[in-house]
Amino acid sequence: MCETNVYIEKDGKEDLYLENVDILKPEDGKIYMKNLFGEQKFFEGTIKEISLIKHRIILKKD
Amino acid sequence: MCETNVYIEKDGKEDLYLENVDILKPEDGKIYMKNLFGEQKFFEGTIKEISLIKHRIILKKD
Repeated sequence: MCETNVYIEKDGKEDLYLENVDILKPEDGKIYMKNLFGEQKFFEGTIKEISLIKHRIILKKD
Repeated sequence: MCETNVYIEKDGKEDLYLENVDILKPEDGKIYMKNLFGEQKFFEGTIKEISLIKHRIILKKD
């Protein structure tokens, strides 16, 4: 299993936003995401970078 | 290891574009990606959906 976490980049730091993400879907300037436990979140921003080896998805505000 | 593949959605079908992707990074309307073997590609389009459980990243033309 890929245990990938979503982080928000802000002021050069990355804060954990959602753990164990499964689905990630850009929708109208927001990023919809759902994790393995069914927890869902919307983040207003965009995808900055994904590194699957590092198990990291970095989002940022526009 | 997460062996995730990138597919391009076109006419309701999904065609394999790059296997074993590590890095994925949106840049100026293109998606830069690099896989585990160092192969790099740019796709002109956007991310449609990511499902890490299914090991699938779907891109689409704008």
